[in-house]
Amino acid sequence: MSVTLEQVQEAIVSPQPTFVFTYTPRDVSLYALGVGACANPMNADELPFVYELHMEGFKVLPTYPVIFTTQMIEQLISGKMGPIEFNPMMLVHGEQYLQVFKPIPASATITSHMKIANIFDKGSGMLVVTHVESFDDLGEKVAFQESSMFIRGMGGFGGERGTSAPIFTIPDRAPDAVEEQATLPIQALIYRLSGDINPLHADPMMAAIGSFDRPILHGLSSFGFAGRAVLKHFCGYDVNKFKSIRARFSKHVFPSETLITEMWKLDDTHIAFQTKVKERGDVALSHAVVEIG
Amino acid sequence: MSVTLEQVQEAIVSPQPTFVFTYTPRDVSLYALGVGACANPMNADELPFVYELHMEGFKVLPTYPVIFTTQMIEQLISGKMGPIEFNPMMLVHGEQYLQVFKPIPASATITSHMKIANIFDKGSGMLVVTHVESFDDLGEKVAFQESSMFIRGMGGFGGERGTSAPIFTIPDRAPDAVEEQATLPIQALIYRLSGDINPLHADPMMAAIGSFDRPILHGLSSFGFAGRAVLKHFCGYDVNKFKSIRARFSKHVFPSETLITEMWKLDDTHIAFQTKVKERGDVALSHAVVEIG
Repeated sequence: MSVTLEQVQEAIVSPQPTFVFTYTPRDVSLYALGVGACANPMNADELPFVYELHMEGFKVLPTYPVIFTTQMIEQLISGKMGPIEFNPMMLVHGEQYLQVFKPIPASATITSHMKIANIFDKGSGMLVVTHVESFDDLGEKVAFQESSMFIRGMGGFGGERGTSAPIFTIPDRAPDAVEEQATLPIQALIYRLSGDINPLHADPMMAAIGSFDRPILHGLSSFGFAGRAVLKHFCGYDVNKFKSIRARFSKHVFPSETLITEMWKLDDTHIAFQTKVKERGDVALSHAVVEIG
Repeated sequence: MSVTLEQVQEAIVSPQPTFVFTYTPRDVSLYALGVGACANPMNADELPFVYELHMEGFKVLPTYPVIFTTQMIEQLISGKMGPIEFNPMMLVHGEQYLQVFKPIPASATITSHMKIANIFDKGSGMLVVTHVESFDDLGEKVAFQESSMFIRGMGGFGGERGTSAPIFTIPDRAPDAVEEQATLPIQALIYRLSGDINPLHADPMMAAIGSFDRPILHGLSSFGFAGRAVLKHFCGYDVNKFKSIRARFSKHVFPSETLITEMWKLDDTHIAFQTKVKERGDVALSHAVVEIG
């Protein structure tokens, strides 16, 4: 499959649907388990994220809004984007930015407005940048998200390349905090129940089509693991202090591998981090930063 | 709290509600993960139980109907049963019998009719026996269940003791098959999302009130693990061959412990089993048998 510059320009301006998503504490807890909450039974501080009757109150992980864009991802893995058709097994999540405007409600009906902000030509593939704003039942903005989706093999259509300059550099010193988090063999099977049912994360045959030896973990699951690490070390699990998170999905993670998130305090409000795969040394999440306050 | 014989007799004849439960493949998959499906990534035969797009078709574990009685359990853990009040932390599941009349649909709206079949006085506690019949959208009977709930400290009201004679004995020979299944530290946190939110399985403080050192795994989760073991060894994962299952919850299991299910083929249609906790040697499930056909 290939694509023309005209098709790309048409895709950018094509109207995008509004997504409505209703969730309950059960969904929130399932997400928390999907990003590894309570995997360490010695850490009682994470129980409020999965236990709606907790006497200190139920808490929602600040990275939960990524689930609001599930329908967008569902639409993308249909392999159609306006006039552009592609093999959904070639789609990988490139980068994610999430800004949180208020504590995420324990249950809500969320309305999300999506637009395609840009489509870049990276040579080896096409980079699709989407913007999503999400509002709760009260009409208050809960979250803004920018997602970059990379579609391998769909480049070379003559579009702009875009920039990939990092917005900061990791300090040349040992990290200020390190968190080691094991993922489960069934990690992707748990995470996908939050809505991202891309077969790449469950089906060995589909993973092979995507050139992976076996199903890979959702990038957004690793993203949630890393967010949880920063929430622990720099917010004391106070979700109000977690303002935004950005990361690039540089390498895949296989379920059952162990994540090591190294964190650097850049200043009072910025925590840079990178997340490595312990078993292979690969940096899975790079160009990553959390804003706290 | 105590109870009189008159209250017990009134509870037995008090009308019970009809429960309606709607589920989708997502719920079915979540249940399967809650009973350990796919915990061994080398066993590809279990993927159809958690992956709704599997090319061989999605499968529902035959023990899934235990979830149809979730609302009954919810009602029981409110600590009220007709005129009887009790501390729900003192309630433990005693025995469960499940008969399956047809393959469980991948999604359905199930109507279940419950009745209290009997309430026995076991001295140290009260044994409540319930019967539940469940029907699918077509009006066809899907499952019959008999549950025995033991409420510690509520005995001595002068009622009948009932019998506890086993309906068969385990052969005096080595088992015909043995399955070892690890449970996860988060096993109960996964399982409870299928609906049984009894704090005993999540909250260390509530577990302490129930005299447990830490939260225990749902008996019905171990029940599902064992059913899966028999399904593997004696049905080749053909859910049509699995007709019924019965077990007594003899000892608790802590999440992260390993279950060892020993199975004996009694005759062409009956597989006796017992499930032990590897770490402590305790028999968690006893008086247990699966009917195949």
